[in-house]
Amino acid sequence: MSLDPARLQPMANAIRVLSMDAVQAANSGHPGMPMGMADVATVLWSKYLKFDPSTPDWPDRDRFILSAGHGSMLIYALLHLSGYANPTMDDIRNFRKLGSPCAGHPENFLLDGVECTTGPLGQGLAMGVGMAMAERHLNATFGDDLVDHRTWMIAGDGCLMEGINHEAIGLAGHLKLGKMIVLWDDNRITIDGSTALSTSENIAARYEATGWHTVSCDGHDFADIQRAIDEAIADERPSLVACYTIIGKGAPNKQGTSATHGAALGHDEVAAVRETLGWNSDPFEIPAPILADWSETGEHSKKARAAWHSRFDNSETRDEFMRRMRGDLPENFSLQHHISSLIDAPQKVATRKASENALARINDLLPETIGGSADLTGSNNTKAGGIEPFTADDYSGRYVYYGIREFGMAAAMNGMALHGGIIPYGGTFLVFTDYCRGAIRLSALQEARVIYVMTHDSIGLGEDGPTHQPIEHLQSLRAMPNLLVMRPADAVETAECWEIALRQKDRPTVLALSRQDLPQLRTEPSEGNCCERGAYRLKAAEGDRKVILIATGSELNLATDVAAKLEEQGIGADVISMVCTELFDAQPKEYKEDILPNVDPGSILRVSIEAGTTFGWERYTMLNGLNIGLDRFGASAPIDDLMEKFGFTVEAIVPQILERI
Amino acid sequence: MSLDPARLQPMANAIRVLSMDAVQAANSGHPGMPMGMADVATVLWSKYLKFDPSTPDWPDRDRFILSAGHGSMLIYALLHLSGYANPTMDDIRNFRKLGSPCAGHPENFLLDGVECTTGPLGQGLAMGVGMAMAERHLNATFGDDLVDHRTWMIAGDGCLMEGINHEAIGLAGHLKLGKMIVLWDDNRITIDGSTALSTSENIAARYEATGWHTVSCDGHDFADIQRAIDEAIADERPSLVACYTIIGKGAPNKQGTSATHGAALGHDEVAAVRETLGWNSDPFEIPAPILADWSETGEHSKKARAAWHSRFDNSETRDEFMRRMRGDLPENFSLQHHISSLIDAPQKVATRKASENALARINDLLPETIGGSADLTGSNNTKAGGIEPFTADDYSGRYVYYGIREFGMAAAMNGMALHGGIIPYGGTFLVFTDYCRGAIRLSALQEARVIYVMTHDSIGLGEDGPTHQPIEHLQSLRAMPNLLVMRPADAVETAECWEIALRQKDRPTVLALSRQDLPQLRTEPSEGNCCERGAYRLKAAEGDRKVILIATGSELNLATDVAAKLEEQGIGADVISMVCTELFDAQPKEYKEDILPNVDPGSILRVSIEAGTTFGWERYTMLNGLNIGLDRFGASAPIDDLMEKFGFTVEAIVPQILERI
Repeated sequence: MSLDPARLQPMANAIRVLSMDAVQAANSGHPGMPMGMADVATVLWSKYLKFDPSTPDWPDRDRFILSAGHGSMLIYALLHLSGYANPTMDDIRNFRKLGSPCAGHPENFLLDGVECTTGPLGQGLAMGVGMAMAERHLNATFGDDLVDHRTWMIAGDGCLMEGINHEAIGLAGHLKLGKMIVLWDDNRITIDGSTALSTSENIAARYEATGWHTVSCDGHDFADIQRAIDEAIADERPSLVACYTIIGKGAPNKQGTSATHGAALGHDEVAAVRETLGWNSDPFEIPAPILADWSETGEHSKKARAAWHSRFDNSETRDEFMRRMRGDLPENFSLQHHISSLIDAPQKVATRKASENALARINDLLPETIGGSADLTGSNNTKAGGIEPFTADDYSGRYVYYGIREFGMAAAMNGMALHGGIIPYGGTFLVFTDYCRGAIRLSALQEARVIYVMTHDSIGLGEDGPTHQPIEHLQSLRAMPNLLVMRPADAVETAECWEIALRQKDRPTVLALSRQDLPQLRTEPSEGNCCERGAYRLKAAEGDRKVILIATGSELNLATDVAAKLEEQGIGADVISMVCTELFDAQPKEYKEDILPNVDPGSILRVSIEAGTTFGWERYTMLNGLNIGLDRFGASAPIDDLMEKFGFTVEAIVPQILERI
Repeated sequence: MSLDPARLQPMANAIRVLSMDAVQAANSGHPGMPMGMADVATVLWSKYLKFDPSTPDWPDRDRFILSAGHGSMLIYALLHLSGYANPTMDDIRNFRKLGSPCAGHPENFLLDGVECTTGPLGQGLAMGVGMAMAERHLNATFGDDLVDHRTWMIAGDGCLMEGINHEAIGLAGHLKLGKMIVLWDDNRITIDGSTALSTSENIAARYEATGWHTVSCDGHDFADIQRAIDEAIADERPSLVACYTIIGKGAPNKQGTSATHGAALGHDEVAAVRETLGWNSDPFEIPAPILADWSETGEHSKKARAAWHSRFDNSETRDEFMRRMRGDLPENFSLQHHISSLIDAPQKVATRKASENALARINDLLPETIGGSADLTGSNNTKAGGIEPFTADDYSGRYVYYGIREFGMAAAMNGMALHGGIIPYGGTFLVFTDYCRGAIRLSALQEARVIYVMTHDSIGLGEDGPTHQPIEHLQSLRAMPNLLVMRPADAVETAECWEIALRQKDRPTVLALSRQDLPQLRTEPSEGNCCERGAYRLKAAEGDRKVILIATGSELNLATDVAAKLEEQGIGADVISMVCTELFDAQPKEYKEDILPNVDPGSILRVSIEAGTTFGWERYTMLNGLNIGLDRFGASAPIDDLMEKFGFTVEAIVPQILERI
């Protein structure tokens, strides 16, 4: 079936006019991209995209990602015109204004149909890889009847220049994600001007070198667009469709230039567009016939959706499928049995190993986990519980060899979590959160349940030296909104933290885990999950309480040793495990004051001990507390030498405390 | 000239044995890579690399970068064997031990001949791009007589999989950096096992698509290696030489497997290597004839070096060349004139615009600056003072259109700074420090003078919304060691910060600059540079001092308005500009106590105001202070609406203060 250009052109022009008018009203935004890609998007939504605006959460819908998120008016126009309940025309009229869901960049938590938050370039495409992985995995698990859809993306030159593009397409090509189609807005214009200012790349050749199918088309010729998309669908490889477009198409004086990229066209040019397109309606008014044609795009998959629902109703796996898609854990899920076994037989292991042991149990109990590592499987201890590799030959596998692609891994995990049906976790060294920080931030902003298994969490990793030793990382991650940073101290805390992380439906967690072995400090059964409140009293002062030691992870054991030494001298010392500052900060005042009594620093000295920067610890120790940490880069040496050199010993710490009390 | 394999083989084996013995002694490290690339490295150092161990700082030496930094024993062996004063054999014996310059990964600040710190994969190669850019620029400026050298890199599969690889080679291909040659250790092994686990890419085709020449060779055939390198040198494009190697070559039972990658071989295999290679010497002993052959490699460029020095002695530009290479600013450099003109005619401009104005003067005064932006030139205001683009056709230009490559830009700037002769600065939005954080950290660790021009530094950027609004970024950067984070409040402070940043020979600076216009608060001449001490009292309390307002950047003006309101009510309030916490923290106690008197919080309330996370501000306000900030993600709306919504107004702040005093 080919579509009638005479019908498509006004539909595309509706996008153009709506986009330019909204940007003009806001006097802020990016009209060039929606105007340039209007024709391609119209074809996609009219003929190919499987969606039903009345059921935006239909699990088997195609996923559409506007990776070039600055062109947000494109997706707002598409959602509105095709019949989604939101955004309303009023929302569009209030584009980029306070309270409108039509934000400057598309936010997944504001609108159905916005599958993920885009704007930071390249990440939409990389999240699409994760969505396509999720689709293939759930297809392998639940069959074609329940899961069989495509992932479509519109990407710009920026998305293709960003480094993450290389990681994402390398992964997609290797995994043969043939249901992924990238529509590249090949307009040869960036903010600074012509792409020729900064790149000379043959992009199609690069994609082909990475296992992709490529095809190009005239992005303003409806038939040619269909030909290219048909070819992309027919090919088994993931596809890049280069759509040769004119940025700002329709703006007679500005089209084809960077002037249309990121600013309102101005009243004169807006009028000239109306003239050029023969568009006579007022701003934010769409002629009824055009609106009717657009409404039809929202109808073409309704039959497929109904068929899907009847298959779903008859499916034996429907409950399990919906449980996973809703993101609910099995009702009886608990790690209590595992924790009890640790209490019975305490283990001295690295917390990364303790994490592996917990994961063995978790991966048995939760079929929805998909693990992986950025080429540090044996170091991150992420392959556990006998899960098999996820490969192009077997998408039912649950372990991803992400390769040396930290950013690509993190973004793919975001995509999986947002697709639904999967709880992704993945590992690298904590220091390399720097490589994927952009995606960690999007996990937090998008409220995505992604679990980061970040091992080798301090100078305690030893010989690899300062490039591999995190210093500022714990605090800099704690500073990020809506992210749990958990640094467990032993095997029991590690299991507790895993359980907490898994229960966070709407936020990501970073688990910071040690390379080195740590003794099990929690050897008595406890009521409930001690880590749940973020901090708890591991040991109460025996003598008159003069000191509160606040420590995390590998330093908690050191704190108990320091406390013992102090108690020997009759100095009472609490030991607080501050396993997660975010959770502690959210506790009621009474609990916080019980753990950290707000008394004169002269009477009780608060001491923080963490093998990382002291920056920020004043929140818990007060300005006159004592902060034991490391405000410089580390060094290459065996762990014991480093701990001594940098003062993480009882001998170094106790005198500092004695001097202060 | 072809080299005698009978001579090269024992030389290469000396690297193999030294590497495996050092790793064995440390019981930690990566023997596989040095053993695999020993033959290639031996050819490179014997015939091609232009270097003189007796003059390691010879400006026209070739630059050699071990981008696969985990194979650090390769470079330590090369430096030692070829006659550098360091590392000594004792240093190598103490590989990865405390105090040895033979750290786990090569550190530029520990050894001459280590041109940059590597380990975080991909960044060595990307820094090499910057070094090659520096070479071409200085060549264009000072001519072939003074500057004409190559940049060589050894990179592994990890370096090529990382996203930064895409950005780096895209830039290098576009800029036609033909004197850059990457020797790729094509061993098909990563930590997790075969590269086939995670990648299916045709790497050569990808490089060719990006404007590179590629050639392959048998990495264990000396003649073939030479053929390939000769071809690479002959080609005008940057070259990728794929060296087909066996990881751990020489270890009869482990070579070719990931078992050799990151762990000591073990005593048995070490003995088996000796047997296989016919190597009879004890650990850390090199037979005299082999050592003599190695010493010769350090001789072959001595003639070239002497010739260079005589050209240098006769050069008219020698003083200027050496000034730039030493990194000294011109003796009379000062922005005082510019600052005086601001005092005479105050300006209400965004600090990004103030930065442009300062840069116009700086770029006139300092011919060694090279500016740029990751495709946000007009937004970062980085092109100033009439500097022309740096292009493949004209390397004398001083403005780089980096494209949408934040990480590649930052790493290239590190390379330029480390090459010497250049002060690089470059811009993007502050939020996208997340995209290049790995390189910012290496600026700090490597003590490189790189100036990051990070604009749009708060929710004040408005409509672009939460993906573009930094929240945690200022604090998370302040947590990083050896990095100045400066957030100037007006045009005068901006100029002062630029001057401070330029004078930091051994650390990088992040300038956080506003999108929005800010009034000039500094309208009186001052003695010296007020920002130099990190914080200063902009306004002293008029009434009885009850409040100290501590603010930065765009919030400093708000703080002065709040102070005025308080003073109206007879409440004395100091206003402190905390322009750089790092510099303030380093001040003597007396100065700090003058600015922030350490008195009972009940008598003077300290209030921080910064449109970002409050995390960490307790260091300056004490636990009982008041922290005005934003501990959540922002929103998309015009600036005034956001400031009101999030409480950055006099009306919102004053009552909170009144309640507390």
